[in-house]
Amino acid sequence: MEAKRLGLQTVVFRQAPCIVGCSTIAGPKEGEGNLGSYIDTLVDDPLMGQPTPEKAERMLLYQACQDALAKANLTEDDMQLFIGGDLLNQIISSSYCARDLGIPFLGIYGACSSIVEGLGLGALIVDGDYADSVLVATSSHYQASERQFRYPIELNIQHKKSNQWTVTGAAAAVLSKTRTGPKITMATFGRVLDYGIRSPNDMGAAMAPAAADTLCRHFQDTGTSPGDYDLILTGDLAAVGQKLFVQLVKESDYTLDSKHMDVGAAIYKPEQRSGAGGSGCACSAIGILGYVVKEMLEGKLERVLAIATGALFSPVSNQQGDSIAGIAHAVVIEA
Amino acid sequence: MEAKRLGLQTVVFRQAPCIVGCSTIAGPKEGEGNLGSYIDTLVDDPLMGQPTPEKAERMLLYQACQDALAKANLTEDDMQLFIGGDLLNQIISSSYCARDLGIPFLGIYGACSSIVEGLGLGALIVDGDYADSVLVATSSHYQASERQFRYPIELNIQHKKSNQWTVTGAAAAVLSKTRTGPKITMATFGRVLDYGIRSPNDMGAAMAPAAADTLCRHFQDTGTSPGDYDLILTGDLAAVGQKLFVQLVKESDYTLDSKHMDVGAAIYKPEQRSGAGGSGCACSAIGILGYVVKEMLEGKLERVLAIATGALFSPVSNQQGDSIAGIAHAVVIEA
Repeated sequence: MEAKRLGLQTVVFRQAPCIVGCSTIAGPKEGEGNLGSYIDTLVDDPLMGQPTPEKAERMLLYQACQDALAKANLTEDDMQLFIGGDLLNQIISSSYCARDLGIPFLGIYGACSSIVEGLGLGALIVDGDYADSVLVATSSHYQASERQFRYPIELNIQHKKSNQWTVTGAAAAVLSKTRTGPKITMATFGRVLDYGIRSPNDMGAAMAPAAADTLCRHFQDTGTSPGDYDLILTGDLAAVGQKLFVQLVKESDYTLDSKHMDVGAAIYKPEQRSGAGGSGCACSAIGILGYVVKEMLEGKLERVLAIATGALFSPVSNQQGDSIAGIAHAVVIEA
Repeated sequence: MEAKRLGLQTVVFRQAPCIVGCSTIAGPKEGEGNLGSYIDTLVDDPLMGQPTPEKAERMLLYQACQDALAKANLTEDDMQLFIGGDLLNQIISSSYCARDLGIPFLGIYGACSSIVEGLGLGALIVDGDYADSVLVATSSHYQASERQFRYPIELNIQHKKSNQWTVTGAAAAVLSKTRTGPKITMATFGRVLDYGIRSPNDMGAAMAPAAADTLCRHFQDTGTSPGDYDLILTGDLAAVGQKLFVQLVKESDYTLDSKHMDVGAAIYKPEQRSGAGGSGCACSAIGILGYVVKEMLEGKLERVLAIATGALFSPVSNQQGDSIAGIAHAVVIEA
């Protein structure tokens, strides 16, 4: 059977690869948040006993990969590919993790959308019979991200209300077509949109147009509407971006109502003082591989459209006056 | 017909997607080098009239994409995906190029191996019927790379003999299965290898083990040997890395002899004072989409194994004492 391409951007998988094992890991702040009970492993020390947050991040990522493999009852040797990406310059967390895993590696970068870029690509590769099983993973770390994109936390720079708090954690999934588990049935790869936002303290606003574009494109390509999904999950728009997203979607004549949940807006409690909410590659990854997958396995969700968003910029592009572009990729996950 | 997977790492494409149009662009130094006559567009000003090398790099990339589309007699609207990656933090050259092209975007990162990661992945996506046509591109810029990975050129830091000179340029290819042109028949995705090299002035040595590993793995997976190829091209090992690569391959009982050409070692003339040779994403990309494709179209090459190598590190990982890991991806291109 041929893969069915709908419209320009959406792919419908013929064999619907399964998430045969997945795992999430995060720090104490995430454990105390609203989604704490959905995270498989909570660590007390966000530095993992390491001298730097960069070294800690790759430990979290490696641990998530090992836990996902164990849950799938498989090993590194069973994986044909490891697809990984993260926020750190030159995706060093993923590269060093790939070195330690020894699995052929495809490095990706979609900023905080990386988990869905990876799941979509991994599903495509398995669906097309180019691999039996692939491992997809991503990570982020509050301290490492702050000092790379904004200021070292030691400077104690006051956060703005629109600031988001990078999730310290990682998530990994094993995709395979020969086993059971939640299925990835479609993927919509997104375009890069730029509405001229220039503040690295307002990334939700920079990502909202791309999220709305990918969502509407998905509906148009597939002929579906919000009613066809139990949940429409966005990655890390957080409080500010979420409002803009809902507004943009409304202008395209779709009403999301209670169907929509944004992981960035949901992950922390108000008293945790996290500005507009969570962000980072691990934010949407924990939402999808923690919350969505667990709710599916418990029969509470049947069909979810998961959209992860990424802000595409660097401190250099920002200092040179470039605006912050956004991207969003989507996958449909079915129980 | 099912895609044929050989061994663990090599994929044989069932429909052999074609390079239906490609283009290369580079600066004056590359124009004066050994491969100058193979580069489609040579620019006089490596800064492209821009205030910064980062902004110049994305102009080179965008121009290469437009030229490749024009050669294929296609437009952005005919492309289902743009697969791009580059060396700059958060792959901003590719992201901004994706924004300006308006094509759904898969951001990748394989350091200087990005062009082959992209060609392999693009061929897989077209081969699997997930897209009719995809655009694959990469870029690098000497000034932008120096100041990001080592020192700003204004400091006039003396280069070491093992230093490589980042190629200022870009290359792009349109892959499609319904047309004619050089075919991509196989891809071998590489593992990350780390032999403990710690100097960012010695990247050829850091990449040589991965190049040898991917080459030997390709031979084992496919049952081929150097005799089956007219040319075995490596990306940017340059003088130092090339020697180590040949040594490692010899230890695995393969003799490359005159079959082997390294683009990094070949691209500049000795009198151009470029240390050990060229590097950067555009180095192997110009070797493959400039030299190899042109020689094929003139009937001088029939079957080429092209291996692009990447050094996986960041200045931060380097300052934190981490060694520099390497990766290499390979594709087979046939006339």
